Amino acid sequence: MADSPNCDLRSLSPLQLFERVTEQGEKVRALKAGKAPKDEIDAAVRMLLSLKLSYKTTTGQDYQAGLPPKDLVLINNGTAKEEDEDLVDPWNVQTSNAKGVDYDKLIVRFGSSKIDTDLINRIERAIGQKPHHFLRRGIFFSHRDMDQVLDAYENKKPFYLYTGRGPSSQAMHVGHLIPFMFTKWLQEVFDVPLVIQLTDDEKYLWKDMTVEKAYEYARENAKDIIACGFDINKTFIFSDLDYLGTSAGFYKNIVKVQKHVTFNQVKGIFGFTDSDCIGKISFPAIQAAPSFSSSFPQIFNGKDNIQCLIPCAIDQDPYFRMTRDVAPRIGQPKPALLHSVFFPALQGAQTKMSASDPNSSIFLTDTPKQIKTKINKHAFSGGRDTIEEHRKYGGNCDVDVSFMYLTFFLEDDDRLEQLKQAYTSGELLTGELKKVLIETMQPLVAAHQERRKQVTDEIVKQFMTPRKLAFEF
Amino acid sequence: MADSPNCDLRSLSPLQLFERVTEQGEKVRALKAGKAPKDEIDAAVRMLLSLKLSYKTTTGQDYQAGLPPKDLVLINNGTAKEEDEDLVDPWNVQTSNAKGVDYDKLIVRFGSSKIDTDLINRIERAIGQKPHHFLRRGIFFSHRDMDQVLDAYENKKPFYLYTGRGPSSQAMHVGHLIPFMFTKWLQEVFDVPLVIQLTDDEKYLWKDMTVEKAYEYARENAKDIIACGFDINKTFIFSDLDYLGTSAGFYKNIVKVQKHVTFNQVKGIFGFTDSDCIGKISFPAIQAAPSFSSSFPQIFNGKDNIQCLIPCAIDQDPYFRMTRDVAPRIGQPKPALLHSVFFPALQGAQTKMSASDPNSSIFLTDTPKQIKTKINKHAFSGGRDTIEEHRKYGGNCDVDVSFMYLTFFLEDDDRLEQLKQAYTSGELLTGELKKVLIETMQPLVAAHQERRKQVTDEIVKQFMTPRKLAFEF
Repeated sequence: MADSPNCDLRSLSPLQLFERVTEQGEKVRALKAGKAPKDEIDAAVRMLLSLKLSYKTTTGQDYQAGLPPKDLVLINNGTAKEEDEDLVDPWNVQTSNAKGVDYDKLIVRFGSSKIDTDLINRIERAIGQKPHHFLRRGIFFSHRDMDQVLDAYENKKPFYLYTGRGPSSQAMHVGHLIPFMFTKWLQEVFDVPLVIQLTDDEKYLWKDMTVEKAYEYARENAKDIIACGFDINKTFIFSDLDYLGTSAGFYKNIVKVQKHVTFNQVKGIFGFTDSDCIGKISFPAIQAAPSFSSSFPQIFNGKDNIQCLIPCAIDQDPYFRMTRDVAPRIGQPKPALLHSVFFPALQGAQTKMSASDPNSSIFLTDTPKQIKTKINKHAFSGGRDTIEEHRKYGGNCDVDVSFMYLTFFLEDDDRLEQLKQAYTSGELLTGELKKVLIETMQPLVAAHQERRKQVTDEIVKQFMTPRKLAFEF
Repeated sequence: MADSPNCDLRSLSPLQLFERVTEQGEKVRALKAGKAPKDEIDAAVRMLLSLKLSYKTTTGQDYQAGLPPKDLVLINNGTAKEEDEDLVDPWNVQTSNAKGVDYDKLIVRFGSSKIDTDLINRIERAIGQKPHHFLRRGIFFSHRDMDQVLDAYENKKPFYLYTGRGPSSQAMHVGHLIPFMFTKWLQEVFDVPLVIQLTDDEKYLWKDMTVEKAYEYARENAKDIIACGFDINKTFIFSDLDYLGTSAGFYKNIVKVQKHVTFNQVKGIFGFTDSDCIGKISFPAIQAAPSFSSSFPQIFNGKDNIQCLIPCAIDQDPYFRMTRDVAPRIGQPKPALLHSVFFPALQGAQTKMSASDPNSSIFLTDTPKQIKTKINKHAFSGGRDTIEEHRKYGGNCDVDVSFMYLTFFLEDDDRLEQLKQAYTSGELLTGELKKVLIETMQPLVAAHQERRKQVTDEIVKQFMTPRKLAFEF
């Protein structure tokens, strides 16, 4: 490292600067503790002040010990979250608001960009068709560098899609389908290759589960994912436990990311502690690596500069903020992102759906009867206490879970708008709205089950075999 | 976890107990900080005291925060090392004693066992021939569970050898050959398979080096290792960067180890800090995993219970103490170990030889002339200041580096004893002893160079290809 802090510091990322200040602070303390000569301590202190100034110039924030720069801070470490803020990280989503998480605030806090009308119109022009209702209805609401992806696409430059899932149990619920439904649409309209990571290693590390069980869940979940209709010639699905041992490029990218992220950083981003196992601590690099095309030499013919676009729920963003921080330092393009809102539990939008509570969700294995019972019994209503009051004052679509679910699954814009007006005016009762939802979900889930039945072990094997896809790179 | 600390705690390792106490301590602090109800705090404190008692019963030591149980403490974390003790860890060897590290003390501190005459005699009986001079002369001086390996061998149960090298630069010195010369002998006399790990990923993580360079060094170093004469039908050499992407079993074992070791533990064992990259923090699992036969399904036919024996320099022991702590918890046998002393630098036994100082070592690429000049100019002498004094008082073999080197490389016991007596009595002068060393090293290095020339890229490729070896499992 150079002695003068100002010559090369401008090229450092906020996080690298943060690290430099922290190290220099430790050095000053060590010198003082070791009763070093005064001029040596003075020089170290001058360096420290200069580094802090650079940090402030770069980030616009004062350096605070133990608190990495805002762009990389997740709120679960307890230091950065303000009293009334929502808690959002890969393992927790909590808000006290019945409407759910305040996504506008989240955009500001995470430093991402809103998907606005201009961007949606630009996507429409690029693909020459109406954008997916997830875009039109703000279900995918935030992005990073989507304009760059469109620039590249308009200039005939290739990109690829990357999404994933942590296979924690055999049963997936309808909320799990959101990123896959959207990714399938993206694959179709842009005609690009897609890689889907099943983080069975993550589940093994976090849960009380054997390696074999985690891998089994991965293969089971792959069936539900395949049933979403992905093109077998353009999609590669992989289990980490499996693919790490079959890819020449994947581990090399993992170790490159691991070299450029410190424990201090993952502590700040993910809230890890000294009592966490070293597997958890190093895992973020494994979710980062598929963002780089060289992790898939068989698909990209060894090319390491293909732009990646990641559709995912916003709670996965911490992984990719870290990835984007590291990318330029290992000579790779930053992945672009499209973020979705959370899928609400039947009981209300305060929490994310949970696979561990069967009543919190509609599962892909539910029968028509179960779906009906769950919705009637558990779907939180925005209606009034009595029919009279409801007729008089109308229902509240902002907190009504049945209406929320319809915004996800009812594709007909006009019908949805009619329902909204009728429910808000009091014309439509809660029971009637629930009936619409039941009639929407029953055939959707049944059709999924039907498609899933067609997914044989042989088809799973084909999707999960590392191979060339139907693209030239 | 059970509420009563006494029911299942007896099955926990000292390290697991240490972790439990630490966690409980954190819980008590959190409860107090959160002003929890008094009876809740009291219950947590009672649990803490009970856990501390279990810890003391098991380890014979009082629990001390931040200081893991003695068997797993390395001295480089600054807390456990006493003033006059030697510093020994995978990255540092330091002693103030010209005779070198005090190995008897190290055995006590590391909790290993001395290789005594009984064990050497038992090895002789088992193999039906004279043990290697490295054993007879105490160069391999310490072990863990070697008697179990011999039990198994005598009962015709198979075992395998595992050793390795961190390929930090193209040039290896003669000290690097010690574990390989000994391992070759073990392979011959016991007729067992051997795996050799080249930790190019470690070197990438620790040094300012590209992934490509680290891999190139691994392949270059493989040539020197192969030139030691290993049997191509019984030996598998692998680079981590390479093999991790080609083995179904290796990563699974790595992630299993990573789940069972916390940051607290690697901090205690290896002295890692919060500023270290997550690659370093998780690396110990990668050096641990080859201790389990399921990391090599192609060799062991998928069998996961083959005993492993690891010959290595004592500074690598921390990795394997960790491995032995984890092994039973992931259902694997503990690897056995044979530890060697350090190879001294030409300048004296206070430090280990260093590949970064060309004059500290005899390199495998040195010419006869370079060898002669280095020994004459740099080999620390135990002789007297003047010929007269030397004739009168004699030289000191305990600190004379030329004599130390001869104990490593001069196989003839009688000749070595003669030299010792002649030097100690003053009959033999330093220059004459150096001449013997020069005449020993020149042909040894030349022969190595000759064998290395025969090692083609094709042969390296064969050794490094995952494959079945000439054994049935």
